[in-house]
Amino acid sequence: MTIPEQNSPPVLRVDLRAATPVYRQIVDGLRAMLVGGAFQPGDKLPTVRQMAVDLGVHHNTVAEAYRLLEEEGWLDLRRRHGATVILRPPQSASPRHQDDYTRALREATARALADGLDLELVAGILNQLAESIKQQKKGTCS
Amino acid sequence: MTIPEQNSPPVLRVDLRAATPVYRQIVDGLRAMLVGGAFQPGDKLPTVRQMAVDLGVHHNTVAEAYRLLEEEGWLDLRRRHGATVILRPPQSASPRHQDDYTRALREATARALADGLDLELVAGILNQLAESIKQQKKGTCS
Repeated sequence: MTIPEQNSPPVLRVDLRAATPVYRQIVDGLRAMLVGGAFQPGDKLPTVRQMAVDLGVHHNTVAEAYRLLEEEGWLDLRRRHGATVILRPPQSASPRHQDDYTRALREATARALADGLDLELVAGILNQLAESIKQQKKGTCS
Repeated sequence: MTIPEQNSPPVLRVDLRAATPVYRQIVDGLRAMLVGGAFQPGDKLPTVRQMAVDLGVHHNTVAEAYRLLEEEGWLDLRRRHGATVILRPPQSASPRHQDDYTRALREATARALADGLDLELVAGILNQLAESIKQQKKGTCS
């Protein structure tokens, strides 16, 4: 139930037992891969049917995920041409987006601590992600 | 649609337009407040009906959220006695919990970057949260 990414650990995975709906898991997972540069503009995603088979989910679920990513400006969907990654114009964030992000981090962290993850481990994971973001910034500027 | 927390910024808020189901938003928000120490064992949460009125949602939605928090070991729910916060035994995390946390952070961060949040701002928010976690650790040990 996973599609390996070319060159880094994140993979597209769905968890049928999770509280998050599967189409949303696919959207979130693919968006992370798109933001991380796993696909370039012009690349084709697997067809809806292929992705549905790979993940073991209904093809309508994948189609809905693709449709939402098209709405977000990541994909061009055309009958017979499948899903093509397009160049997405830069967005301008609002204070609300920052609030949403802070809240999402806090809630994910609270869940991790509730699950029994060690405080030091959690702080380390956060710092590590911050570091990889800063590296991305350096990469963009050089 | 918010219930202010005693002494820190997080508040319980639901967003009816969000993709996350409302009962899940309530669970995640209350869990974050419980982990953050907003309630102590023995404290009573607002009744289901009161919370439903405050948040502007159906009381069944709040009841479902309370039921899930009871399952997670945070609450004691008794007819006529409402929801009482209980002492939750420490959990032992599995590698899967760590994976889930890393994935949740990556996906939330990808969404923030896709929304147009600045890389430096995102890294700063992550470091700040890591710092507050470390402070919590010091608080626990002293």
